[in-house]
Amino acid sequence: MEYIFSDKISSLKPSAIREILKATSDPGVIPLAAGNPSAEAFPVEEVRKITAEILAEDPILALQYGVTEGYNPLRELVSSYMKKKHNIGRDLDSIIITSGAQQIMDLASKVLLNEGDTVICECPSFIGSLNCFRSYNARLCGVDVEDDGMNIEKLEESLKTEKNVKFIYTIPNFQNPSGVTMSLEKRKAVYELAKKYGVLIVEDNPYGDLRVSGEHIPAIKSLDEDGIVIYGGSFSKILSPGLRVGYVIAPQQIIAKMTVGKQAADVHTPMMAQLIVYKWMKDYNFEEHISKICSIYKSKLELMCDATDKYLGDKVTYVRPEGGLFVWCKLNDGIDMLDFCAEAVKNKVAVVPGTAFMMNADDKTQCFRMNFSTPADDKIVKGIEILGNILK
Amino acid sequence: MEYIFSDKISSLKPSAIREILKATSDPGVIPLAAGNPSAEAFPVEEVRKITAEILAEDPILALQYGVTEGYNPLRELVSSYMKKKHNIGRDLDSIIITSGAQQIMDLASKVLLNEGDTVICECPSFIGSLNCFRSYNARLCGVDVEDDGMNIEKLEESLKTEKNVKFIYTIPNFQNPSGVTMSLEKRKAVYELAKKYGVLIVEDNPYGDLRVSGEHIPAIKSLDEDGIVIYGGSFSKILSPGLRVGYVIAPQQIIAKMTVGKQAADVHTPMMAQLIVYKWMKDYNFEEHISKICSIYKSKLELMCDATDKYLGDKVTYVRPEGGLFVWCKLNDGIDMLDFCAEAVKNKVAVVPGTAFMMNADDKTQCFRMNFSTPADDKIVKGIEILGNILK
Repeated sequence: MEYIFSDKISSLKPSAIREILKATSDPGVIPLAAGNPSAEAFPVEEVRKITAEILAEDPILALQYGVTEGYNPLRELVSSYMKKKHNIGRDLDSIIITSGAQQIMDLASKVLLNEGDTVICECPSFIGSLNCFRSYNARLCGVDVEDDGMNIEKLEESLKTEKNVKFIYTIPNFQNPSGVTMSLEKRKAVYELAKKYGVLIVEDNPYGDLRVSGEHIPAIKSLDEDGIVIYGGSFSKILSPGLRVGYVIAPQQIIAKMTVGKQAADVHTPMMAQLIVYKWMKDYNFEEHISKICSIYKSKLELMCDATDKYLGDKVTYVRPEGGLFVWCKLNDGIDMLDFCAEAVKNKVAVVPGTAFMMNADDKTQCFRMNFSTPADDKIVKGIEILGNILK
Repeated sequence: MEYIFSDKISSLKPSAIREILKATSDPGVIPLAAGNPSAEAFPVEEVRKITAEILAEDPILALQYGVTEGYNPLRELVSSYMKKKHNIGRDLDSIIITSGAQQIMDLASKVLLNEGDTVICECPSFIGSLNCFRSYNARLCGVDVEDDGMNIEKLEESLKTEKNVKFIYTIPNFQNPSGVTMSLEKRKAVYELAKKYGVLIVEDNPYGDLRVSGEHIPAIKSLDEDGIVIYGGSFSKILSPGLRVGYVIAPQQIIAKMTVGKQAADVHTPMMAQLIVYKWMKDYNFEEHISKICSIYKSKLELMCDATDKYLGDKVTYVRPEGGLFVWCKLNDGIDMLDFCAEAVKNKVAVVPGTAFMMNADDKTQCFRMNFSTPADDKIVKGIEILGNILK
């Protein structure tokens, strides 16, 4: 039988990155293409204790249906923490728990986008979010990322000329894939432009806690007195991605629609996962755990950057990130980026070709992405040495 | 700020059922409106043991990212069990693990429906699925459910006259809300009609294992040599709904597209939940557990039906279901159904007005739904006695 698929799913082609990521699962390949937290970064002993407690104290709570908005004590705890720590959330806002931060993009799209509407994205940007917007048949308009975030002139140009722009999508901290952190000036400028042109901002902040150097910069949402920012947070990078727990703080009316959308999508996020996160935040010193993760990642980031300087120094340019999980390298002109990535896989090193993060797979780029959280330290150095040899 | 929402989410109005379900959370209200498994039906001790084992043996597997398709050993186990036990799945089929059965509807819609396409549904049908289809701006075409399933003449009529029908949605066993089980003859007829008119079937079977009387009837999917049936299963009613684990068995090409859709929606179903289901199926006698649940539900179903006969016998008609979780009563003409449901809530008994399960909230019906798995035995009898007093 020949199946006829929806226009929106037909526009989503299996990407080159999928093939390269498949190669990553080969244990013989050095996985610089991945994005997994380091295995050392999981609070295993705590999760063991917490899980036993949950199933001893109130197993039915963990196994029975929950409400779509999420486990109320967790919502309240995250909400008050984010308000106190980051000045995120006003009286006009509310919060729901999501099935990972990916679902925030799905719900924002479902609630805000008609087919053909435009989303302004940083270029490059996270492929998971781009694919989500594509799966709603959105038009993606890319605005170049500079060393301190989006090019503000180009952003305003796009807001002026693009039709039916519904929101600006940004990862302000240690952006995936570029590693760039948006300056406070630019955060304010993006906020003012969104306000001026009557569009929303989706601020995706999965890496915000993973700062290894430099000064913390307030979230765009912390400026939001007008109810124009949808803020997405996640426990994937600080506790566990396998639990799939994220949260979204946004104006109540938007949250109400997202709740209706979530009920139709997956009813609620698994209770056990929510309870683990709740008890971890409530009973453990999770900020100490985050400090521990940051010190692991600081050393891995420096190792990767130092190896890049040593083995690739005259072949690539890059901005040393102040946190996150990724280093984004631009190959010198004259080297074919896709050939280089293919050659790397042949030599048992997987990196992600930059095309994966473009608005269109045909867009040209000389960049590729490397991740330092997944590979062991010696593999980071070995992998980059191999990349250097390929370029010789 | 005034927010402009997408057409598809705007079409989803907060429903009357939501208000009634809110009343259900009041501990003073007898919850005949719910649909939760009975607290006695959870294998708490097994889940305790399994969870401790998972976190002792391979905690990183439980906490790290998984693949979108689902944990491979679980996919293989479910796949081989369903083939052996129910003759479900052919070489042309594949399987993915979903975040509850609700996500199967979401993914089927994403993959198959353009806005305005038609889904043929049983009338009445499960509000969660109807809302999911609505959230893709689908047109719902209802076909009346008779005592042995869909009216086949009306189904063919709809297939002939409706435009852009993409699939027929059916819950063949102990349908929610009607409690009806489709006969084998009708299952064959639905299959042949789908084949004749070139549309797919989405067979949603969350209650199939909850048979308390009568003979098992093979799934429509067991007839599927042509690759036209998308079969959805769930662990919500036999193990735990809070874990949110379902699965879909469908032709490989459809599964491939659903996988792309799922990656954009929530990346993967939480690993801990998948591992609990896997070990429960692998290491425990889960068929014995299902028998235990069925004996609990048999007694509760009989209690509800007997009380209905006693207190509502001359005021309603209904078909005694052979399983599932629900009894669907039709009020005699002359009684206003919505007034009755509102009066019931005032008297601290919640039932669901049948309008919630219609294609349009304005469609007339004299029916309401009662659930017997959630309330304690004495509450079932007490609740129906109160309903009887209202009707006096």
